[in-house]
Amino acid sequence: MKKTGRPEIPRKAIYRLSVYLRCLHRLKANSIRTVSSDALAAAAGVKPTQLRKDLTYFGQFGTRGLGYDVEQLAKMITDLLGTNSLQPVILVGVGNLGLALLSYRGFEQEGFEIVAAFDVDPDRKREKTVTQPIHGMDKLAGFVRDRGARMAILTVPAVVAQEVANQLVEAGITGILNFSPIVLQVPEEVMVNNVNLAIELENLSYFIQD
Amino acid sequence: MKKTGRPEIPRKAIYRLSVYLRCLHRLKANSIRTVSSDALAAAAGVKPTQLRKDLTYFGQFGTRGLGYDVEQLAKMITDLLGTNSLQPVILVGVGNLGLALLSYRGFEQEGFEIVAAFDVDPDRKREKTVTQPIHGMDKLAGFVRDRGARMAILTVPAVVAQEVANQLVEAGITGILNFSPIVLQVPEEVMVNNVNLAIELENLSYFIQD
Repeated sequence: MKKTGRPEIPRKAIYRLSVYLRCLHRLKANSIRTVSSDALAAAAGVKPTQLRKDLTYFGQFGTRGLGYDVEQLAKMITDLLGTNSLQPVILVGVGNLGLALLSYRGFEQEGFEIVAAFDVDPDRKREKTVTQPIHGMDKLAGFVRDRGARMAILTVPAVVAQEVANQLVEAGITGILNFSPIVLQVPEEVMVNNVNLAIELENLSYFIQD
Repeated sequence: MKKTGRPEIPRKAIYRLSVYLRCLHRLKANSIRTVSSDALAAAAGVKPTQLRKDLTYFGQFGTRGLGYDVEQLAKMITDLLGTNSLQPVILVGVGNLGLALLSYRGFEQEGFEIVAAFDVDPDRKREKTVTQPIHGMDKLAGFVRDRGARMAILTVPAVVAQEVANQLVEAGITGILNFSPIVLQVPEEVMVNNVNLAIELENLSYFIQD
């Protein structure tokens, strides 16, 4: 999907920029104002050449020998990622994992706010209470339209995941963080990132065998 | 890390094998006994050429024109992934996310059992009860040794993640599923898979901008 006026940056480079941003936040919290590319690369766990290549997306900046200005670089990455204002995110499927994500406070620090949750059974008694409202699925389309939400976290069982994904796309969601262990079929303009914990464990399992 | 007597399979191929395995389980649940490579590829969301290439790791099998035997292929993949017996996994850091993962029932279906959790404050009142015991960190090394656990899920805050990872490695853990937003420095023989929800959201955020 071509973005007009924005550089075409590969997905893996975007991941690395997110990691650099976290390192910069830690430096800033420690009152460190400039950082060399070697030091930032080491903190992020990448090679200095990789870091310098990734930062060329921002054109020329930084003063040779002085390194990067921590605050300026953090701002440039934040602007690029589009996380400079709090983005509304909805969550669909309020089971155990959904509940945990609703009460996970880490998202807001990163520029995301889960504003509401949706479930086929919104009134079911749950193991803990969350601050966000839990609505029925019939409220989804109207809510997404009214709030202008674009991103959704999908934590429904695999058997209904495709059907719910269709509803999300129809409602205007263009980015889905999918926790269901299936490959979602979506239109080209919709982006899906998959987080599958069992697959991550399986992958580890293979690599740690004797 | 070279595994004696086992094929060197790239990490991405291992991920795809996990996805094929899930598709095969669904086919089996629907009493389907054979599947063509085209149909299995479509279910997994990959190209048929990719699927056939991935399955060459198992050598020649399948009957031309008849497709793959669902049960046989599932067993071969399970054996390769090392998930044919329930693997003990420990979890370190019992906050919101840790609690959710402890009560998530999806892992056992996939061959993993979280047998115990560890936390700096095991007795703190938590929002829900879990079936696994929660121990103090001083019990970690002994438990890992006695149970022969090799895999750990790390859900501690970023500031202590490296320190805790060091303790895990020292205790004999060789596979870490890391939820902390930092790059862990570990010895070469230890495998780390990172699951960073905020980074996934940030990545989506970039790609859905106009």
